[in-house]
Amino acid sequence: MSHIKGIAASSGIAIAKVYRLEAPDLSYEKTKIDVPENEVKRLHEALDISKSELEKIKEHTKNSLGDEHAEIFSAHLLVLSDPELIQPIEDKIKSENVNAEAALDETANMFIDMFKNMDNEYMRERAADIQDVTKRVMAHLLGVTFPDPALINEEVVIVADDLTPSDTAQLNKQYVKGFTTDIGGRTSHSAIMARSLEIPAVVGTKEITSNAQKDEKIIVDGIDGDVIVNPTQEELDTYQQKMVDFEKQKQEWAKLKDEPTTTADGAHVELAANIGTPEDVEGVLNNGGEGVGLYRTEFLYMGKSQLPTEEEQFGAYKSVLEQMGDKPVVVRTLDIGGDKELDYLDLPKELNPFLGFRAIRLCLERDDIFRIQLRALLRASVHGNLKIMFPMIATLEEFREAKNMLDEEKVKLKEEGHNISDDIEVGIMVEIPATAMIARQFAKEVDFFSIGTNDLIQYTMAADRMNERVSYLYQPYNPAILNLVNNVIEAAHAEGKWAGMCGEMAGDSIAIPILLGLGLDEFSMSATSILPARTQLKDLSKEDMASFKETLLSMGTSDEVVAFIKEKTNQ
Amino acid sequence: MSHIKGIAASSGIAIAKVYRLEAPDLSYEKTKIDVPENEVKRLHEALDISKSELEKIKEHTKNSLGDEHAEIFSAHLLVLSDPELIQPIEDKIKSENVNAEAALDETANMFIDMFKNMDNEYMRERAADIQDVTKRVMAHLLGVTFPDPALINEEVVIVADDLTPSDTAQLNKQYVKGFTTDIGGRTSHSAIMARSLEIPAVVGTKEITSNAQKDEKIIVDGIDGDVIVNPTQEELDTYQQKMVDFEKQKQEWAKLKDEPTTTADGAHVELAANIGTPEDVEGVLNNGGEGVGLYRTEFLYMGKSQLPTEEEQFGAYKSVLEQMGDKPVVVRTLDIGGDKELDYLDLPKELNPFLGFRAIRLCLERDDIFRIQLRALLRASVHGNLKIMFPMIATLEEFREAKNMLDEEKVKLKEEGHNISDDIEVGIMVEIPATAMIARQFAKEVDFFSIGTNDLIQYTMAADRMNERVSYLYQPYNPAILNLVNNVIEAAHAEGKWAGMCGEMAGDSIAIPILLGLGLDEFSMSATSILPARTQLKDLSKEDMASFKETLLSMGTSDEVVAFIKEKTNQ
Repeated sequence: MSHIKGIAASSGIAIAKVYRLEAPDLSYEKTKIDVPENEVKRLHEALDISKSELEKIKEHTKNSLGDEHAEIFSAHLLVLSDPELIQPIEDKIKSENVNAEAALDETANMFIDMFKNMDNEYMRERAADIQDVTKRVMAHLLGVTFPDPALINEEVVIVADDLTPSDTAQLNKQYVKGFTTDIGGRTSHSAIMARSLEIPAVVGTKEITSNAQKDEKIIVDGIDGDVIVNPTQEELDTYQQKMVDFEKQKQEWAKLKDEPTTTADGAHVELAANIGTPEDVEGVLNNGGEGVGLYRTEFLYMGKSQLPTEEEQFGAYKSVLEQMGDKPVVVRTLDIGGDKELDYLDLPKELNPFLGFRAIRLCLERDDIFRIQLRALLRASVHGNLKIMFPMIATLEEFREAKNMLDEEKVKLKEEGHNISDDIEVGIMVEIPATAMIARQFAKEVDFFSIGTNDLIQYTMAADRMNERVSYLYQPYNPAILNLVNNVIEAAHAEGKWAGMCGEMAGDSIAIPILLGLGLDEFSMSATSILPARTQLKDLSKEDMASFKETLLSMGTSDEVVAFIKEKTNQ
Repeated sequence: MSHIKGIAASSGIAIAKVYRLEAPDLSYEKTKIDVPENEVKRLHEALDISKSELEKIKEHTKNSLGDEHAEIFSAHLLVLSDPELIQPIEDKIKSENVNAEAALDETANMFIDMFKNMDNEYMRERAADIQDVTKRVMAHLLGVTFPDPALINEEVVIVADDLTPSDTAQLNKQYVKGFTTDIGGRTSHSAIMARSLEIPAVVGTKEITSNAQKDEKIIVDGIDGDVIVNPTQEELDTYQQKMVDFEKQKQEWAKLKDEPTTTADGAHVELAANIGTPEDVEGVLNNGGEGVGLYRTEFLYMGKSQLPTEEEQFGAYKSVLEQMGDKPVVVRTLDIGGDKELDYLDLPKELNPFLGFRAIRLCLERDDIFRIQLRALLRASVHGNLKIMFPMIATLEEFREAKNMLDEEKVKLKEEGHNISDDIEVGIMVEIPATAMIARQFAKEVDFFSIGTNDLIQYTMAADRMNERVSYLYQPYNPAILNLVNNVIEAAHAEGKWAGMCGEMAGDSIAIPILLGLGLDEFSMSATSILPARTQLKDLSKEDMASFKETLLSMGTSDEVVAFIKEKTNQ
């Protein structure tokens, strides 16, 4: 039995058995064999089972993420049926009398090396495809499990060092009851996905993979950040009860689903959700979201072998807008670079990627990519209440240049005969200190601000939020952050604009009273945080909170702020 | 003939022949030899010439940087005389009949691998020593030049991809008339050193190493950032004249050497210098510096194999304080990590080192290292006018913790019977946006601020100043930066404290009028920038500049600011 503390990343309790998601050991010994026919047979068995697995994964991906994402697996299936790859493996077994593992590995590597060195993007992609599928076939030859979230067909808790975006994209809520990882924090990709999927999760445990073995019983408490491996019966009972209580609590929250968000003194704010795909909208509506405050469009570009077309994007944007009806949908244009890489774009390695060539910086230079997104957005605008937001804006010139491209595409599309909405608000993410600092100047030109606290905090404190050695400096309540946030809200209101927040902070129970007092208009958060936030706001007085403003802004430390708010709001 | 544009990094004109500083090709062929005695003889010749070179480098380093820095070369000399290394090489030549190159390389690699894998810091350092000296011996065996700045004995201009701190430390002004590099910017290490040594330099040319060959004639114009390879006679004449004019200009400036810094309307400000070693103080005094605004103590820790002792540090601090007499000396405590690594500290690799575990963050955790520096500083305090400054302070807690350690060491030293000054001012670098934002809160606890613009700008704009793809965002005049600087100065004055600036911006002719108007008290810059700055300030009216404050702070872009200042100050 072991108790491990981590970071509560997604609320709820999961109790199930451990499923370890890890790269298997694929090392093999090259041996001489006597009966080549047996090896060829083993090879074909491994190929067949790999194919049937890939069919399942493809089907699952299609259902959960749509056709485009499933395409990659079609390519993988083609590789497994390609005689130009399979025949040479068979020949090698027969002519050299070697085992299937060695024949597979050596033949595949020959093709991979050959394709990799070609000056042709298509061939380089094929090299990557061969590499991927060879691993799966090799695992079956060696009789080791090749773990894959999409193939899970019983109730489990996933234990892993970390989950990649493509891992999380394949999680099936029916079987995956929760997950827990060694690394990551509340704002890491896997944590955001867990909340979006409403799967309980505890991340950043540092040691869960060393402590939880296959099929052991495990409890994941995503409310308090606890993980228990091999719990006692007493602990099982306690957490069963906590699970029941949490479900009850959720039912309480659900009663506010169709209510407006109103404070104790009758003030209104908007509670919106952050989403990543059209499939997330259902969760937003089920959780009473009054809008989408941040639609991250990166997922359209990730886990694929090429850029999404204008039509693909148009389809996704239209779907989100139509599902949301009259409710506002803020779409953030492409934010890649930094920790989000795209293999097919071949971005240069940077010494400090968080301070590098990403988001709008990349889009303004690669406007061939950017304009396709703008066109898709403009065309979708007639299908709902669209607002467009540019990420990582640091200077007025960048905003003007991006806005100008948008206007140019609008003119072109109209000339081409498309209908385009004439009242699309165009705003910016405020996530760079410079922008928050002179928000007053920006407010004259943008239609709205949405404060991206995840990045704003890391730049303002000069501390990488993914770096554990400086994680003590990731301080959402630091008075410096509150002063910047206040700057942005005051600037917006002075020019008659609105200010929202789409970072993790917007859904936090300590931050909510502060932000209410500072006058924030829109709070955008994980869908599952909306009803708890609405419940909290119902009991808060905006006027009371506003009266604390000057006190909070002149405090010296984060600890003082937290202590003050806890006292004033009985937390 | 080719004209290349770069970044003017250090003023002045240099005309000389090209000396290419680059890693030589040390690849060799392993061959069977007939007469082993000849190979042994070649080996010893190469060893002897390597030894005599190292003696010269050691001597030069001792004179320019002091005993501690020369130590590393004593270690290298010991390696070259060590029979436990040399005998096995000879044995290999004789027993295997191989050439000296192969015997040297294989034997050295065996020792390097062996020592490297030992769990013993001393042995790992020996591995590094062997690696270094083996390269030099190999170069002599192969008959290729092993370039070394300390061995230059004729007038040259150095051409290199970049210069490391240890390269620049060995530059001899008598022979090295200037240098020019492919990479780097005004705030890179080599640029700072060039100004400190008063050697003309043009950096960041991107292509000088592809355009200048050994012994070609080259002009480096560190005033305008131009480099000309194989100039025409006319160009030579022009630049000879420019060199003469620059010398005349310097003589004009020199007249203000012992004058106070006074503006046209009679206001006083302090012009101080940034230094790296006690040897730099001479340049500060020769250039009329009124103090040292930033003593970077990293050089004491760099280019060595172990941490400097308390005595070594005490000696350096005392030397600087004594040379400066009554004039203030602001010593910045250790700022390593980020782009400044120390091999012997074994710091973890970070994804975003500029947002990582560096400076005060590292010192508070490694207080064993930090307290030694604090003790050395406290003991030196009675020898002059010492002020202590902590770098990278992001929160009040960090300042309090560092200050507390200083107070603890003071008590201990007094108990040990040492004399310690009782009026040492303790301040902070303001280089993190959070700190500039709530400077008012900090001003109640610190004795002074010194704004470090190099980092403050990169964090505020979220743009790595070393990354060319986002270098357009390194904007000292961005109104966001000016607002933060203004915040800091106002906060200091409100609490009766002083505010200085020790980033590159403090010596810039566009920034100087702005900073004067914002009320900056102390400007700390490269020593060679002091007299030009004093000349500029003599003609500026502080009152006029102050009247532009609100206009500047409410501007939208850097370009507007620059245009405005150029017009108002006739630049």
